[in-house]
Amino acid sequence: MSKFWSPFVKDLVPYVPGEQPKLSKLVKLNTNENPYGPSPRAIAAMHAELNDDLRLYPDPNGDRLKQAVAEYYGVQPAQVFVGNGSDEVLAHAFHGLFQHDAPLLFPDISYSFYPVYCGLYGIDHEQVALDEQFQIRVEDYARPNGGIIFPNPNAPTGCLLPLDAIERLLQGSPDSVVLVDEAYIDFGGETAISLVDKYPNLLVTQTLSKSRSLAGLRVGIAVGHPDLIEALERIKNSFNSYPLDRMAIAGAAAAFADRAYFEQTCQQVIASREAVVAGLQGLGFEVLPSAANFVFARHPGKDAATLAAGLREQGVIVRHFKQPRIAQFLRITIGAPEQNQALLEALQGL
Amino acid sequence: MSKFWSPFVKDLVPYVPGEQPKLSKLVKLNTNENPYGPSPRAIAAMHAELNDDLRLYPDPNGDRLKQAVAEYYGVQPAQVFVGNGSDEVLAHAFHGLFQHDAPLLFPDISYSFYPVYCGLYGIDHEQVALDEQFQIRVEDYARPNGGIIFPNPNAPTGCLLPLDAIERLLQGSPDSVVLVDEAYIDFGGETAISLVDKYPNLLVTQTLSKSRSLAGLRVGIAVGHPDLIEALERIKNSFNSYPLDRMAIAGAAAAFADRAYFEQTCQQVIASREAVVAGLQGLGFEVLPSAANFVFARHPGKDAATLAAGLREQGVIVRHFKQPRIAQFLRITIGAPEQNQALLEALQGL
Repeated sequence: MSKFWSPFVKDLVPYVPGEQPKLSKLVKLNTNENPYGPSPRAIAAMHAELNDDLRLYPDPNGDRLKQAVAEYYGVQPAQVFVGNGSDEVLAHAFHGLFQHDAPLLFPDISYSFYPVYCGLYGIDHEQVALDEQFQIRVEDYARPNGGIIFPNPNAPTGCLLPLDAIERLLQGSPDSVVLVDEAYIDFGGETAISLVDKYPNLLVTQTLSKSRSLAGLRVGIAVGHPDLIEALERIKNSFNSYPLDRMAIAGAAAAFADRAYFEQTCQQVIASREAVVAGLQGLGFEVLPSAANFVFARHPGKDAATLAAGLREQGVIVRHFKQPRIAQFLRITIGAPEQNQALLEALQGL
Repeated sequence: MSKFWSPFVKDLVPYVPGEQPKLSKLVKLNTNENPYGPSPRAIAAMHAELNDDLRLYPDPNGDRLKQAVAEYYGVQPAQVFVGNGSDEVLAHAFHGLFQHDAPLLFPDISYSFYPVYCGLYGIDHEQVALDEQFQIRVEDYARPNGGIIFPNPNAPTGCLLPLDAIERLLQGSPDSVVLVDEAYIDFGGETAISLVDKYPNLLVTQTLSKSRSLAGLRVGIAVGHPDLIEALERIKNSFNSYPLDRMAIAGAAAAFADRAYFEQTCQQVIASREAVVAGLQGLGFEVLPSAANFVFARHPGKDAATLAAGLREQGVIVRHFKQPRIAQFLRITIGAPEQNQALLEALQGL
């Protein structure tokens, strides 16, 4: 603690992201990255931006990207917000939409960045317990709240909430924003963006870091009613006029335009997931039903922390959360077939 | 105003950046971009990053860039913070270092983003008048404050505060952070980074958007005592784990490594500035002494808004601020020699 700090800083408990090891020999199944590279059209679009025009500021509004997202989802550009990764988009949403008298609600097992944002912006919040099967129970959210947020599929469980349940949530809290954080939606879920014209309190966020293989580029989006987007724009324009660089705007727009590549790589990841689930079950693991590019699994006879350490010794990194209810689970990213094979083989010896 | 907004959002008055026209025929002298492209080594470093590894997250700490900055300035990496443009770095500094009981102080004529950040984070502030020659008077800041910030050289005046005056400011407010925002320092000033080991209350920010010709890449830095850097890291890690993408880390590090190109292009801009000042004076303009890559000028017999509109009609964009004390000034970026010539010729007819 320094006398120079704003007082709240001493109480901040920052988010801890999964390790980004500098060694490239590891089988890295810990941060839910895509085993396939980005669309070649995205790479080409970025190469084209790498010239002396980098001396000039980018378009502060990222209109080219908003247009690409709007076309992809059949919405208006005024319903689209773009930011420097979905973490930045989420931060602005917490700041601009969730500072109310009633508490923000989110699941007790969820993206661990949510309570961090609450600390950053002084937002009162309550964690709502998932049921025994680690599913969201919609009726538990029918109480006074200043907003609701959850990942769908949920992280780190991978479990999907169907759209009809999301509609019940939206109808149950018509005066609060319901933010559906769809980081993993493309691996088996159906996006709630189809509902934004019907529910003015719905905001959907997505990232290009998972299904579009651009974690290294830092692009996220939000889609919702123009009033909600305006709150995000006001925050953004009071924070950083130009959050997306020239390559990010061009690369992300091209990634949305390349539907075929996107659909093909998502299908490959889904097929691999099913193989990993079968392999894990064959080894005696219990695996939660996953609609994401990772699985959440526990072994009835083996300690999760010990397994994670044993995998690490064999050069395979997975994620283990020392957290109530899930301390016996491992979160394992779906990799390329040979990485998944290496995982299963390493587990056999543990 | 929407019922869904956090209450403070309705009172936000966002920053308005200079126009980024989508037509490329214009002589664009309105946002202080560099007329020369970035270092070829920076471009090459970014091309090398454009591959399938973009599927992976970047280094959340940007260590490669911190190391390059530390080497360039002869400081330790723990004294360096990096962010998505200096605007993001400044936002985190306002949030983490300026929320105190006493008001933040900054000049009445200054970077117009400062009051916007105060609005975003609820920071009480007082604007301190520049003197009649548009210079900062150090003695006016010797009063209770929760921090001091100013650009050096100042924007939009271009006027430089020498290091001995900065030391007097630091000594006069030992319990507050003094943030020197050096966006334009490389065009004629001396960086205060040489003072960070002596003053634990000094934070210096810089951008790669001006002297390093990378406005399109979005990279900014801060250098100061590790305690101040820790406050910024805590905020950053509670906001967005990965603010810099892979190309930004690589390109910015390479730009710092290429001293020769940097020094050569800065010298070219400085030589052009002296030619523009002479040309403007020849046309009867009064020009404030500039240590930046822009000049701030007024004509005793011509209205600034009329001049700006007249230039625009001839395809030359400059910046005009409708603001007390400076409404009769134009802020004119130093362009390439042919752009500067176009500006002077266009002014001759007005």
